[in-house]
Amino acid sequence: MKEEDLYMKTWEKNIRRVEPYVPGEQPKVKDVVKLNTNENPYPPTPKVHEAAERMNISDLRLYPDPEVTDLVHAIAAYYGMNDNQVFVGVGSDDVLSMCFLTFFNSDKPILFPNISYSFYSVWADLYRIPYEKQPLDKDFNIIPEDYYKENGGVVFPNPNAPTALYMELDKVEDIIKHNQDVVVIVDEAYIDFGGKSAMELVNKYENVLVVQTFSKSRAMAGMRIGYCFGNPELIKALNDVKFSFNSYTMNRTSISYGIESVNDKEYFEECVGKIVKTRENAKERLSQLGFSFPDSKANFIFATHKSVSAKEIFEKLKEKNIFVRYFNQPLIDNYLRISIGTDEQMEKLYAALEEITGQVK
Amino acid sequence: MKEEDLYMKTWEKNIRRVEPYVPGEQPKVKDVVKLNTNENPYPPTPKVHEAAERMNISDLRLYPDPEVTDLVHAIAAYYGMNDNQVFVGVGSDDVLSMCFLTFFNSDKPILFPNISYSFYSVWADLYRIPYEKQPLDKDFNIIPEDYYKENGGVVFPNPNAPTALYMELDKVEDIIKHNQDVVVIVDEAYIDFGGKSAMELVNKYENVLVVQTFSKSRAMAGMRIGYCFGNPELIKALNDVKFSFNSYTMNRTSISYGIESVNDKEYFEECVGKIVKTRENAKERLSQLGFSFPDSKANFIFATHKSVSAKEIFEKLKEKNIFVRYFNQPLIDNYLRISIGTDEQMEKLYAALEEITGQVK
Repeated sequence: MKEEDLYMKTWEKNIRRVEPYVPGEQPKVKDVVKLNTNENPYPPTPKVHEAAERMNISDLRLYPDPEVTDLVHAIAAYYGMNDNQVFVGVGSDDVLSMCFLTFFNSDKPILFPNISYSFYSVWADLYRIPYEKQPLDKDFNIIPEDYYKENGGVVFPNPNAPTALYMELDKVEDIIKHNQDVVVIVDEAYIDFGGKSAMELVNKYENVLVVQTFSKSRAMAGMRIGYCFGNPELIKALNDVKFSFNSYTMNRTSISYGIESVNDKEYFEECVGKIVKTRENAKERLSQLGFSFPDSKANFIFATHKSVSAKEIFEKLKEKNIFVRYFNQPLIDNYLRISIGTDEQMEKLYAALEEITGQVK
Repeated sequence: MKEEDLYMKTWEKNIRRVEPYVPGEQPKVKDVVKLNTNENPYPPTPKVHEAAERMNISDLRLYPDPEVTDLVHAIAAYYGMNDNQVFVGVGSDDVLSMCFLTFFNSDKPILFPNISYSFYSVWADLYRIPYEKQPLDKDFNIIPEDYYKENGGVVFPNPNAPTALYMELDKVEDIIKHNQDVVVIVDEAYIDFGGKSAMELVNKYENVLVVQTFSKSRAMAGMRIGYCFGNPELIKALNDVKFSFNSYTMNRTSISYGIESVNDKEYFEECVGKIVKTRENAKERLSQLGFSFPDSKANFIFATHKSVSAKEIFEKLKEKNIFVRYFNQPLIDNYLRISIGTDEQMEKLYAALEEITGQVK
């Protein structure tokens, strides 16, 4: 018993103690260049605006559809899946959290990369799931062979976060092939910015879940919509747990706006295209300024500077009201995660970086 | 090992198996008289409509405030609490679910009434929390003394669901007084329709949580907003677990509409007043039709008929497109839970009941 426990009341001792995930800062001041949480710099499709104007506010007195039928169907139809292969939640965090609770119930440790989405270890701690982190190689690549050992489940982002590195689909399949006894989750929050989705593998392997989100490529972080694809048995198990947690997680506005977003393919592709173009330009500009980075297929770049420390750049940018993300963690504490903004925002960033790093392009 | 387990794959064996809560039917046809899920028959405050029109859809690209600061503050201010005494979630189901996960971690069983909100046992099963149901007395009253024994936590609704019976605050306090070693949750989804809230006890006992919702009295079931009051240590523990589950559970529309709702006291009181008036009238009318029921302080009446079975009435009402709730469960399978609608809806109900029960008033 720890010393402090002596002074604790019984009800205090029975509190589940956790180290929560810390999301990127949401600055409350206006007029900032916000490149710190991988949001989309463009608004959602104008169809969302129309849906908002059309919405019958009086209907908000009624519960939403607990099965989210129409949004599930819209997503399934868009991606050529069946409705019973789709689960929808309150952002991909909710979907992933439900997946951990539903599928990771083995005594063996689950496996995920040591540099990765830092929420994985938080969920594992919350649900008391044993885990083992697998090191990336020196260039930040996931080493598939590290996931061939016995385990209780596998989860990794592709592209990885915060490195932005994409792993080719044959390597993803290698990991799945070697793990047919457990559920394998491919977390594709950033897949729309240049990678190839593993969703086709859902029809080939019954133990695979592919998770995606409306928060990045669909510019709807503020509405909290995520989803995953999997075989109907996995999806049913997820829904059973969801219905044991909260019958109605998706409210009426998120269902309505989500459907509009999925149905506007043209706008979506145009928006993603612009971000990819800005990102490719950013690679050149950041190189010229003395930065290096793994090749990004996401809507952010994970960059380190040859002479100025990441922490210093982070702080100096903040003074100029430019927010990027800095992780004060071993192995990556000299890197900045810079979200891709509009061209105008990026020009402000380059100008500030030029000043901070003392480089002239 | 069960026989079916022999044929199960390892990943299937590691699925968390649950019996999910089944919410009341959300009929997809229009023109029904919907008295089955205790929704409010009146729309949310017109201020919500104004907020919807004012909302900047472009901002939906940005994550919402993870701390829900403004909505927390609005609720705290309305009820005379401090901001650090308030936790907000996706409906009171989300709040209760988080409470179970955060506070019910003892080896001893938690206690709740045997006739009560049926989600309690579902959450306990989901999180593998031991529990013991305590019988109500023959008139459906909670017996405070049954909750004096050693336990891992206590939870009960007041008014109780689906009985609609309110327990006086001195009895609620008796239960709390005898349970200062565990967290006691008072689930007040229906308190605004005539009961006195236990929220004042939050300042007197450090182990009490009082849970309320926007889904009933505030006519916002479709937006999914719930909250609870408790001492700052309990609220911090809840937030830590929430931040270990999903950083952003409340989307931008629910935060905005929620604030408007809380701030319109006059509309809220008028709306609740109308429902209470209709309920008191319903007591007379249902009595005249041969029904009896515990005295309701909620927005529903839990009624049994002297000669026609509840199941039969339920089915015949459904044929007439009038939906009420029927629980096919021991002890309550001859009762109907009838939500209070508008006067017009209730007249349709009485006319149908008159026909079904063959009574003439």
